[in-house]
Amino acid sequence: MSSTVLYMSMSLDGFIAGPNESPDNGLGDGGYRLHTWVLPDPGEGVNRQVHDEFMATGAVIAGRGTFEPAGGWGGDHHGGVPIYVLSRHPAPDWTADWPLVHYGNDPDAAFAEAKKAAGDANVLVHGAATAQRALAAGLLDELEIHLIPVLLGSGRRLFENLGIGQRQLERIRVLHGEDGVTHLRFRVR
Amino acid sequence: MSSTVLYMSMSLDGFIAGPNESPDNGLGDGGYRLHTWVLPDPGEGVNRQVHDEFMATGAVIAGRGTFEPAGGWGGDHHGGVPIYVLSRHPAPDWTADWPLVHYGNDPDAAFAEAKKAAGDANVLVHGAATAQRALAAGLLDELEIHLIPVLLGSGRRLFENLGIGQRQLERIRVLHGEDGVTHLRFRVR
Repeated sequence: MSSTVLYMSMSLDGFIAGPNESPDNGLGDGGYRLHTWVLPDPGEGVNRQVHDEFMATGAVIAGRGTFEPAGGWGGDHHGGVPIYVLSRHPAPDWTADWPLVHYGNDPDAAFAEAKKAAGDANVLVHGAATAQRALAAGLLDELEIHLIPVLLGSGRRLFENLGIGQRQLERIRVLHGEDGVTHLRFRVR
Repeated sequence: MSSTVLYMSMSLDGFIAGPNESPDNGLGDGGYRLHTWVLPDPGEGVNRQVHDEFMATGAVIAGRGTFEPAGGWGGDHHGGVPIYVLSRHPAPDWTADWPLVHYGNDPDAAFAEAKKAAGDANVLVHGAATAQRALAAGLLDELEIHLIPVLLGSGRRLFENLGIGQRQLERIRVLHGEDGVTHLRFRVR
């Protein structure tokens, strides 16, 4: 059974990007520390295991705000799996020749199509705004939080103004990664 | 060597109390879930180990906002160790007969006295506001976060407006507690 899984690196104080984000400073001040467990290389241990997991997913769902600044990952995030982009705007021309990329503005439809396309594999959910929409709509099955031992002080929070009331989670895995990262996996109840 | 240690239960979305805190609702809506690992009883496993650790500390530092609503713990938090209360106000009359209780408004002095009193034992730091002041002043040595698998959505955050810039932490322990709690220990660099 396929699950939709958010993979997200977060500081202990809840930030997924540092302050002063801009096109030239996409992770915000200090935000690169959130990704040193996997960039430039996840090594060969626990961090590699987690990296390989999300690179084995069978479909990707991302918001336009994640997809477009990343250059659409050249049209292929990994392994030729389909990419569903949530956007109120039509697909830009530069994506026209990418058969894997599907624009749409209906989260229910995008998640259903992604799960179908993924078959038995999981679906990688990408980006904070999309994760928040998916949580609010009950479309997110699991969260894999890469908890980073840093206090960023300010920046962009993962869990902000969710407007979803309260949600009980089930902790289903804890992995002690290298470089101080703790990979915490939860199922949304 | 004695360390000052904040022990704090926090939801995955960073809250230490739910919304609508009031004298009759001291933990906020849903906030009791943050404490079920230790209340009414920590059991006999990992959660007991962590409970016993903070009950073996050699001194307590708390803010007035934690100490007074708790009735000053009857004048003895645990084991007859001294309690240092940070407050801009003088000690209230009802604490006058409690020899363990020391009011003051100087964090540096309170932390120094608490460490001296604790000897080789650690110092228990109690309360979010005190933890924030201590972090800002560089007086907090370690954080033990009891991470609870729940999203509270709103309420009171532990890490809010710290005004401390960024701080690197060192993950020094991860314990998988019962009831879904993950005990994460960090040293402040």
